[in-house]
Amino acid sequence: MTTSTRTIGERARAAARQLAHAPSEQKTRALVALAERLETAGAEILEANGQDVLAARAAGLGPALLDRLTLDATRLAGIAADLRRVAALPDPVGEVFDATTLPNGLRAHKRRVPLGVFGVIYEARPNVTIDIAGLALKTGNAAILRGGSETLRSNRALVEAVRQVIAAGGLPPDAVQLIDDPDRARVLELLHLHEYVDVIIPRGGAGLHRFCRENSRIPVITGGIGICHLFVDASADLAGALAVIRNAKVQRPTVCNALDTALVHREVAGVFLPRLIDALAADGVTFRIGPSAQPFIPAGHPACTPAGPEDFDTEWLSLVLGVQVVDNLDEAIAHIAAHSTGHSDGILTRDDASARRFVDEVDSAVVYVNASTRFTDGGQLGLGAEVAISTQRLHARGPMGLRELTIYKWVIAGDLHVRP
Amino acid sequence: MTTSTRTIGERARAAARQLAHAPSEQKTRALVALAERLETAGAEILEANGQDVLAARAAGLGPALLDRLTLDATRLAGIAADLRRVAALPDPVGEVFDATTLPNGLRAHKRRVPLGVFGVIYEARPNVTIDIAGLALKTGNAAILRGGSETLRSNRALVEAVRQVIAAGGLPPDAVQLIDDPDRARVLELLHLHEYVDVIIPRGGAGLHRFCRENSRIPVITGGIGICHLFVDASADLAGALAVIRNAKVQRPTVCNALDTALVHREVAGVFLPRLIDALAADGVTFRIGPSAQPFIPAGHPACTPAGPEDFDTEWLSLVLGVQVVDNLDEAIAHIAAHSTGHSDGILTRDDASARRFVDEVDSAVVYVNASTRFTDGGQLGLGAEVAISTQRLHARGPMGLRELTIYKWVIAGDLHVRP
Repeated sequence: MTTSTRTIGERARAAARQLAHAPSEQKTRALVALAERLETAGAEILEANGQDVLAARAAGLGPALLDRLTLDATRLAGIAADLRRVAALPDPVGEVFDATTLPNGLRAHKRRVPLGVFGVIYEARPNVTIDIAGLALKTGNAAILRGGSETLRSNRALVEAVRQVIAAGGLPPDAVQLIDDPDRARVLELLHLHEYVDVIIPRGGAGLHRFCRENSRIPVITGGIGICHLFVDASADLAGALAVIRNAKVQRPTVCNALDTALVHREVAGVFLPRLIDALAADGVTFRIGPSAQPFIPAGHPACTPAGPEDFDTEWLSLVLGVQVVDNLDEAIAHIAAHSTGHSDGILTRDDASARRFVDEVDSAVVYVNASTRFTDGGQLGLGAEVAISTQRLHARGPMGLRELTIYKWVIAGDLHVRP
Repeated sequence: MTTSTRTIGERARAAARQLAHAPSEQKTRALVALAERLETAGAEILEANGQDVLAARAAGLGPALLDRLTLDATRLAGIAADLRRVAALPDPVGEVFDATTLPNGLRAHKRRVPLGVFGVIYEARPNVTIDIAGLALKTGNAAILRGGSETLRSNRALVEAVRQVIAAGGLPPDAVQLIDDPDRARVLELLHLHEYVDVIIPRGGAGLHRFCRENSRIPVITGGIGICHLFVDASADLAGALAVIRNAKVQRPTVCNALDTALVHREVAGVFLPRLIDALAADGVTFRIGPSAQPFIPAGHPACTPAGPEDFDTEWLSLVLGVQVVDNLDEAIAHIAAHSTGHSDGILTRDDASARRFVDEVDSAVVYVNASTRFTDGGQLGLGAEVAISTQRLHARGPMGLRELTIYKWVIAGDLHVRP
């Protein structure tokens, strides 16, 4: 017997109201207790996960998906360590800002409060379950989780552990709920639950994001799709540029902040491109060569094929790199405007004026000068944790950490003030 | 021949890219030029408006709607004065904040940038057209306007004037575009234009907000619907409480921050309620009396009727006031949690502990202590202008001024940093 989506929503709202004014120490204690629980009593979780893995293997899931799905003691310990890190971060809730006394004597300020209830729709990774639960608890929000059907047993065990720990800490267990019915109709119901849910956070591929955007009556944080660019300007330190591009492409090619397209200034293309291709081909990279780059490529290079019409609009998530030559900075900026998803784009240059123009005119969540796009990450940028990387423009852009899971209320105190 | 919604979107995006780095002085000059244009060359606008008014009168529109629709030289001068005020406000675009140097030496900061493109769907008031155009221009955003069909001629003339002035100022006229086709299907098209439009701002009644929420693929700023409460605590200064409630109810009853329900602590209900009812009845207020308040009402008072089941969930927008008696602060907070739209709610008290608990636990965009709800207004709260009053929880709550029409991008500079 599964709980109706509406009931889940009502319970989440009620829990959120209670959690919104839980003291920081109480939330921190619950997070630490959850970490301990995962470290010392993870047996039922691993058993449930083992069943998921068996079923997935029987269903013929590929090795990459099986790997994502699998938990073991080491991974649980890693998840627990992440929880302790989040527990140790400062609590953004309650922060007072923009305080002012108005000319009429009214005292106004804004106070940071939780967003309320968020719905998270995600795919195979069971670690997301604890990740989101921890961030929700820390920021005083309630979370409604809808994971992939392959992880249903794992998620049930994980959420059960979370709820027990929350309740033992004197907090409302309905702060974290799982929609544990694999029926796809439940996702639609969640997306229509605007009375109870304040924001939808999809974590998955472009198809999931599109589905949420097209069907949600609740604002959706679109993100995590990165067609990322680095532009090698004529003045770039070419050895450094090569190192940065290699890092952005090769270090972890399957993630959204990995590089997709290298744009190279025509003046340095003859020197730089053959070096780039030789170096990265040795790492296993293959290249899609745009028409203007073609003349600079050694004829018949085995790692290079001409770019197809969709190639500069593809997030590769693999060891493939698009390559294009541009005549100048304007052309680089125009290419990025036409093809970027607004995630992470950068310039490699020694010219301050070019760097300034690039930063002014490239309209991405994170704009880089002389650094790898791989730094677009809540941990790397000092947020301590992240719930998503937003590529939409409302509320937050780029990595969303604890503060981005809050909003404010105005608090206004007067002496029986009336409006004239 | 009308322009397709998609083409309008493309043009808006292109204009937004250009406007995003227009210098403040250039934007200010255009705003001042627009004010001058309205003051000195409003004849075509007034003529077009006269035709709208004639047509509306022929179609049998009521006097309130006709009044909203009508422009004259005085109103144009008022609109121009508002534009000059917006022109004089500081430009939020370009502000740098959260600057930091990370342990690895990366320099990161956030830079305030325009939201991008917003779509505004509104009803009869032609002043909204200039209001939104001015705010968009000031904040470097492009706006796509969809006004009511009764104001089509006025809006065409107004937008034409706006575009001429923008172009004369060397800025892209497509920063302000009107969907001037009265076909309702165009609204749906606008709501589906997520590639080009970043946020939808409905300005109108609950029905319009619902329509936008249910049909939009773009985040919607829901707001402007205020079921507002004031709670008279046992310790309240009763004469002051009466003055505040009168102001909140009577000063301008047709707006969203006007009072809808007075909650009165049982301890003072016997003294306070008869005074409240006598005083406000003299202003023409009628009352919907909740069951718990009934015993405190003079029998057969002509201004009082028992509250019906929907009355505490109604935004009155008129001289009607719901009245309920509660046993204590908890009951007041619970009533507000059940019935408020999260716009503006307040407590009247001399007890600091009660004030603190009310402010902590009432989850509205603006929470008041000892002041009228009528202060929820961008002008009153020092924002200088407002585009909407948000009652949703993402991005901004309460009055949205210039800063709330912006977002940020991350700017990260390194010395050829790579991620380890």
